Amino acid sequence: MTNRLIYMPLGGAGEIGMNAYVYGYGPEDEERLILVDLGVTFPDMDTTPGVDLILPDMTWLKENRHRLEAIFITHAHEDHIGAVSHLWEELGAPVVHARAFTANILRQKMSEYAHDLRSVVTASAWPEQITAGPFKVGFLPISHSVPESAGLVIDCPDGRVVHSGDFKLDPNPVVGEPFDPEVWAEVAKPGVKALVCDSTNVFSDHPGRSESEIGAAIETLIAAQQGMVVATTFASNVARLKTLAEAGHRAGRSVVLLGRAMRRMVTAAIETGVMDGFPKVVSPEDARDIPRQNLMVLATGSQGERRAATAQLARGKFNGFELKEGDLFLFSSKTIPGNERGVIAIINQFSERGVDVVDDASGKYHVSGHANRPDLQRLHQIMAPQMVIPMHGEHRHLREHAKLAGQGGFTSVIAVNGTMLDLSGNAPSVAGYVETGRTYLDGSAKIGALDGIVRDRIRMALNGHVMVSLILDEDDDPLGEPWCELMGLPQQGSSNAPLADVLEEDLDQFVRRADAKTMADDDKLEEGLRRVARQTAQLEIGKKPEVTVVISRMG
Amino acid sequence: MTNRLIYMPLGGAGEIGMNAYVYGYGPEDEERLILVDLGVTFPDMDTTPGVDLILPDMTWLKENRHRLEAIFITHAHEDHIGAVSHLWEELGAPVVHARAFTANILRQKMSEYAHDLRSVVTASAWPEQITAGPFKVGFLPISHSVPESAGLVIDCPDGRVVHSGDFKLDPNPVVGEPFDPEVWAEVAKPGVKALVCDSTNVFSDHPGRSESEIGAAIETLIAAQQGMVVATTFASNVARLKTLAEAGHRAGRSVVLLGRAMRRMVTAAIETGVMDGFPKVVSPEDARDIPRQNLMVLATGSQGERRAATAQLARGKFNGFELKEGDLFLFSSKTIPGNERGVIAIINQFSERGVDVVDDASGKYHVSGHANRPDLQRLHQIMAPQMVIPMHGEHRHLREHAKLAGQGGFTSVIAVNGTMLDLSGNAPSVAGYVETGRTYLDGSAKIGALDGIVRDRIRMALNGHVMVSLILDEDDDPLGEPWCELMGLPQQGSSNAPLADVLEEDLDQFVRRADAKTMADDDKLEEGLRRVARQTAQLEIGKKPEVTVVISRMG
Repeated sequence: MTNRLIYMPLGGAGEIGMNAYVYGYGPEDEERLILVDLGVTFPDMDTTPGVDLILPDMTWLKENRHRLEAIFITHAHEDHIGAVSHLWEELGAPVVHARAFTANILRQKMSEYAHDLRSVVTASAWPEQITAGPFKVGFLPISHSVPESAGLVIDCPDGRVVHSGDFKLDPNPVVGEPFDPEVWAEVAKPGVKALVCDSTNVFSDHPGRSESEIGAAIETLIAAQQGMVVATTFASNVARLKTLAEAGHRAGRSVVLLGRAMRRMVTAAIETGVMDGFPKVVSPEDARDIPRQNLMVLATGSQGERRAATAQLARGKFNGFELKEGDLFLFSSKTIPGNERGVIAIINQFSERGVDVVDDASGKYHVSGHANRPDLQRLHQIMAPQMVIPMHGEHRHLREHAKLAGQGGFTSVIAVNGTMLDLSGNAPSVAGYVETGRTYLDGSAKIGALDGIVRDRIRMALNGHVMVSLILDEDDDPLGEPWCELMGLPQQGSSNAPLADVLEEDLDQFVRRADAKTMADDDKLEEGLRRVARQTAQLEIGKKPEVTVVISRMG
Repeated sequence: MTNRLIYMPLGGAGEIGMNAYVYGYGPEDEERLILVDLGVTFPDMDTTPGVDLILPDMTWLKENRHRLEAIFITHAHEDHIGAVSHLWEELGAPVVHARAFTANILRQKMSEYAHDLRSVVTASAWPEQITAGPFKVGFLPISHSVPESAGLVIDCPDGRVVHSGDFKLDPNPVVGEPFDPEVWAEVAKPGVKALVCDSTNVFSDHPGRSESEIGAAIETLIAAQQGMVVATTFASNVARLKTLAEAGHRAGRSVVLLGRAMRRMVTAAIETGVMDGFPKVVSPEDARDIPRQNLMVLATGSQGERRAATAQLARGKFNGFELKEGDLFLFSSKTIPGNERGVIAIINQFSERGVDVVDDASGKYHVSGHANRPDLQRLHQIMAPQMVIPMHGEHRHLREHAKLAGQGGFTSVIAVNGTMLDLSGNAPSVAGYVETGRTYLDGSAKIGALDGIVRDRIRMALNGHVMVSLILDEDDDPLGEPWCELMGLPQQGSSNAPLADVLEEDLDQFVRRADAKTMADDDKLEEGLRRVARQTAQLEIGKKPEVTVVISRMG
C-alpha cells in the first residue's frame, strides 16, 4: 500500500476563527494524524444568541482519534488555543505541544477543567523537532501580535510542509523574536512541498507596518494629556501593552492593569521570560491614592465586550475608576467587523461624560498583526513552495490569496473546511470531503449548530411566544377554556382587547367546533390550536408567534 | 406675555436615524409649532429582535398637537420621511410640505395607509416661503445623495433660523441642484440667529468629494468587464444610479433595475422632472434574452438586507438572474456601521460562486452624501450665525461638531433628543427637557421601547424558555405531576437524562414537599416552581432559562 500526505482544515478555512488543521501521513484512511491549533470563535446575537463559545465540530477527528498523534498550538490567541480544554478529552487526551508562553496560557485553561497538565509539553524553537508518528514538527519563530508565535515545519517522508501560523514580517516586534528571513530561507532550502499560509490581510495592499513604528505617536499623544489616560488593546498583545505602559511611565504616570485577562497575559509574558523591562504596575486599590493626571490605565475590552473593563468604565464606575471631562480614552486596536455597534456605543457613552476618545480611524496608534498582500508575496518567494494553500480566512480571502499565489507562479487551491487535500504529488488534489460544522458551548452543554435549539431561540426572539394550555376530561371534553400565556408579545392588538383574551376566545370557539376525532388526537388538536393562535395573532398584531401547546388529559 | 423661539429635537440628536425636530414660537408653553422631518431608524437583532421599524416617541407632540401648524420634510430618505405615514393620524393629520420628488415618494407611502393625499402639499424652492402660524418657511436647495434635498429657512419675529437638512457642498451632483454658495450667502445677509446643522461626517478631515468625481472610475471598471455586471447602491441615490446606468450603457450593456425600491425611485425622479437622460431600462423578463456580458443590473440591498435583491442574488437565483464565475458585483456604497456582518456574508457567498466583488475599500466607486469637517466649517462661515446647533449625529458627532464650531468662534451647544432650547437671546439656553424615546412598529402593533416586550424576547433568545404546567384539584392537591415543555434549550444535561424529565422530577419533589399555604397561593407556588426549574437547569446545563408557569385549578 502506498502512503500519502493529507491536509484537511476542520475550522478556519472559510471563516476567520476556530482554527483546526489536520495533517496526516500513511496509507489511505489509515494516515497517522496531527492537529494544528484548536481554537474557538465568538457568538453573536444575530446567529447564535445565548451561546457562550463556538467550537469546531470535531466529529471526524473523534472517530479517528486512535490515529491522532498529537496537537500542536502555534500561538496563544483564542481562535487557535481556545477549544483545547473543551475538546481535549473527546479527542482522547492527546499530548499538546506549544512554546513556553503559549503553554503557560494553555495550562491555566486546562487547569480550570482539572485536566492533566502533564499533557501540555513545552516545545523548544526550531531547529529542534518533535517526533509525532511519521511527522517531525519544528516550531519556527515568527512575529505576530502575541509573544512566541510560531510557524510549523512539518516533515514527513513525502517532504516538508510549512504551516505559517498567524504572522507578520516584523523586523522589530518590541516583544519577542523578529521575523528572520534567513532562518526561513534556510528552512526552505531542502525544498518545500506546500506553504499553508495565513490569508487574513490579503486585501491590504501596502506592506505591513512594524509594531515599533507606533511607539512615538503613542508617546506624543500621552505626553500631551492633562487628565487620566486609559488605553485598551487585545490583552494578548503584550508588545502593545509594553509600548503603552512605557509611554505612560515616561510621562510620569503609574501603570494600572484593569481586567483579569490583561494581568494574566502580562504575568505569563514575564514568567516565561519573553518580556522584560515592563514598567512597575500599581494595583487598582493603590491607584486610588494617585492623582488622576498621574495614571495610565490599561483596560481589557477593545472589542466592546459588555463585561470587560472598557464597557464598564463607559457605563460608570469600575474598580474605583471613573472617567470624566478632560480624560482620554485610547483604542489602540482595530474593531473587528461585526463589533462596530458595541464599540461605537462605548465611544458615545464616553462622549456623554466629556471624555475624549481616540480610535483607530487615523491608523496612528495601531498596526495589524497579520501579513499584508506584499508580505504574503514575499513569504511565497522566500519559501518557493510547490504549492501555496491559503488558510485562516473567509472564502473571499482564500480566493484572493489563491489568485495572488497564482500570479506569482505558484500552484494554489481553495480548500475550505472539510476538504481533504492529497499533497503527495506535485499539485494538490482533492481526496474527499468530510462533514464539518460548529459545536456550541451553551452554558455547560455542548449543542450542535444544526440541532434546532438556537433556531428556536431566534424564532422566539423574532416572533414572540404563546403558550396554550388545554385540559380535557376522560371523554375528550374540555375542562374549562383554553388558557394563553404570552411572552414577548404586545398586550393588545387591533380589537383593543387584551391579546390573550382574544386568542382564548378564538381557541375556545375552535375547541367547541372540533370534531370528536380531533379532540381524541393530541397531534391534530395541537396542530389546530396552533393554527388558530397564529391566525388570530396575525389579525390582531400582524405577526405569527411561536406557539407551544400543552394538552393535559385527566383520568 | 413675551414670545420665545424654541428648538427641540425629538429624534436624530444623539443618534443617526429617526430625525424629528420641533421649532416653536409664541408665549411659553403656548408656542405654535412646526415639525421638521419625521423619520425612522432600523431595528437590529441585538437590541430590537422582531421589530419592523423604529419610530421616534411622539408622546409630547401628540399631547401638543393642537399647537402643531405643519410638518416640513427636507428630503426623501427613510430617516427623514419614513415615520410620517405611521404617526400622521396621531399628530392630528397635519399638512405636510415637501418638494416635488419628496412629495411623490411620500404620497406613495401615505396611500399605502389610505391617508388623505391632499395633506401632502408640494412646495416650491426658495425664495418662496410657506406660512405656518408665526413661521415662514422656505425650501433652500442643497446637494445630498437624494434628489431635491433642501435646507429650511425658518423665519419668525425673533429672527431667522437655517436648518441645514442633510447636505454636502457639491458643485456638480450629477442629478439635481448643485450647492450654490451665493444663494446661501444671500439668505444669510439679514443675519442668521441659528444654524442647525448636519453633523454626520464631522470626523472626516478631508473636503468632501463630488458625486461627479467617481463617474470616470466606474466607467473604466465596467468597460473592462467580460461577464454580467451587477451594482448596488442606495435606491434613493438616483444620481449614482444614473452614473452606473450610463457607464453600463456606454459599455454596450442593457440596464435592468432589480428591486421594487429602485424602480420606484427612478420612476419618481423621472415623473417629477428632476432627472432626464436616464438610459432605457429593460425589464428583468426581457433581460433573459440578452447575453450576460451585455447586462448592467442595478440591484437594491447595499446594506445586506436579507430580502433585497443583492442578498437574494448572493444566495442563488433572483428574478431569473444568477451570477457566476467571471461576473462582477460592485458595491457602489458604504457599509453603515452595524451592517458589516451581513454585507461580508454576501461578499463571501459571491466569492463561493466565483464572482468578483468590488467593495468600498478603495473609495473609488462611492462618495458620501454628507459634508465633511472642512465643508461644515465653510458653511458655518458662509452663514455666520449667532449660534451653531449640531444635529443629525450620535453624541460623539454632536460633541465634536460643537467643538468645531467653537474653534470657529461660534457659540454652540450639545442638545440631545428631548432638550428644549430657547433661541430667543443671543445664545441658546436650555428651557427644559421632555421625555423622548422610541416606539417600535412590531407587525401592525406599536409598542413602547420600555414596555418590556422586546426585553422578554431577548431573554428568551439568550436563556431559552421552559413552560411548566401544573393542575391542582379543589383541595390544592396536584392532579398528576408537573409537566415541562422546553424551547431553545438542550435536550439533555449533565445527568445524561432528558432535561425535561430531570426538571419534572425536581418540580414534582418540590410540589410534594410544599406546605398547604404555598399550594393554595398561586403566586407563591409559581415562584417556587420557577425557582426550582431555574436551579435544576443551572445544575444540568449551566444556564438559567426563562420560566413560565401555568397553574390550573380544577373545580
